[in-house]
Amino acid sequence: MTGKLTIVGLGPGAPELMTPAVAEVLRAATDLVGYDTYLDRVPDTNPAQRRHGSGNRVEIDRARHALQLAAEGRNVAVVSGGDPGVFAMAAAIFEAVETGEKSWRRLDIRVEPGVTAVLAAAAAVGAPLGGDFCVMSLSDNLKSWALIARRLEAASRGDFVVALYNPTSRARPHQLADAFALLRQWKPADTVVVFVRAAGTAETQVHISTLAQAHTAPADMRTLVIVGAEATRLIERPDAAPWVYTPRSERGPQ
Amino acid sequence: MTGKLTIVGLGPGAPELMTPAVAEVLRAATDLVGYDTYLDRVPDTNPAQRRHGSGNRVEIDRARHALQLAAEGRNVAVVSGGDPGVFAMAAAIFEAVETGEKSWRRLDIRVEPGVTAVLAAAAAVGAPLGGDFCVMSLSDNLKSWALIARRLEAASRGDFVVALYNPTSRARPHQLADAFALLRQWKPADTVVVFVRAAGTAETQVHISTLAQAHTAPADMRTLVIVGAEATRLIERPDAAPWVYTPRSERGPQ
Repeated sequence: MTGKLTIVGLGPGAPELMTPAVAEVLRAATDLVGYDTYLDRVPDTNPAQRRHGSGNRVEIDRARHALQLAAEGRNVAVVSGGDPGVFAMAAAIFEAVETGEKSWRRLDIRVEPGVTAVLAAAAAVGAPLGGDFCVMSLSDNLKSWALIARRLEAASRGDFVVALYNPTSRARPHQLADAFALLRQWKPADTVVVFVRAAGTAETQVHISTLAQAHTAPADMRTLVIVGAEATRLIERPDAAPWVYTPRSERGPQ
Repeated sequence: MTGKLTIVGLGPGAPELMTPAVAEVLRAATDLVGYDTYLDRVPDTNPAQRRHGSGNRVEIDRARHALQLAAEGRNVAVVSGGDPGVFAMAAAIFEAVETGEKSWRRLDIRVEPGVTAVLAAAAAVGAPLGGDFCVMSLSDNLKSWALIARRLEAASRGDFVVALYNPTSRARPHQLADAFALLRQWKPADTVVVFVRAAGTAETQVHISTLAQAHTAPADMRTLVIVGAEATRLIERPDAAPWVYTPRSERGPQ
């Protein structure tokens, strides 16, 4: 098979956070496949290029379509936001390969990494990921709430910083509050909690709270929530929001 | 104070994985501060720019020096590999701010994110981070082995994928084997383990193993180790190394 499929990450939003490697894949592709919202972020520089947009939540159908195009000999770019390997299209593509046509295993399939949301969210407030951390999705579309709760407990018992993707949606407005209630069982009430909306874009908004207070804070689908470790702390500043960081050492700032 | 300090991440190594935002900060800076190995990766395009290289393991001295330069009104770029917020210079800068001159809190300090090693390592083998994951450093320079062991246990009990930075060094050659021995207490023997050396460069090398076998595998300071969740699996291919991925759903491939 001569077809090629590359799963690329556009980064968190601002064009200057997309890698040149991804830009080159997008330029060279004969076909772009992705969620409409992400395709809209790709500049239309190649009139011969075909675009195959689709709605949210049809990842496996989209993955099979992309693989079929590649099997026909096309040069396909599958477009994700952030990094394609973190709660995005790369896992869906490999699921579709495993359960699909045997011949798809001969395709040239690559993944081009990108800046995932938690890195841009952390950068917006300081260095909250300065120690060890966990990255979780709160969506229970694909996993049970029991597994989410088990992981929140484990991450707390390990005193990890915890980054929460997909913290809330219209279909599950209460989950973030439920997650905070669980975390309060194991993490101190004064644990720093940061909400970063639209990280890595021109519209970034930051809200800093504590685990005791966090249930009242606003979050939506574009918000990334970072719950600190015990050592995560604020640096107060005159006339500006504090910086948030986690010291590198368990003995605190050196 | 008019000085400016931006902590930037060069990405994992290949120039095309560095964001345009970071390239612009590097171009505009009057002073570059960093570990010699990272400074050597920055093209010398500005003859008026000063370079302040230093050895490894002097992060706090380097951070204070950078802050002093910014306080003198310079436009300073502090250079990290990967992402500056993940086991890199951003936390050291904020530690130095907290423990240093009060006036440093008035400086314009920013963090420019980058592609951290685990994203490039995952991309090299497929989509092993398709579910929830933890990111840990195995270095015990700044934390106790007891805390590392506690976190390995917690990450295992949560069935997270676990990414290990700094898996070994000349000063601590046995730690990775010790970490595998701990993980074998809680994770199944057939758990997929991936070693990716020099991820995101032209010299990337991949070795795929299992937790039972992993103690024999080679790793060095440039290796990133990814230990799978229970669901992490291989897709065998004709005439090529298998792909590794973690399905998005706890019920397996959809």
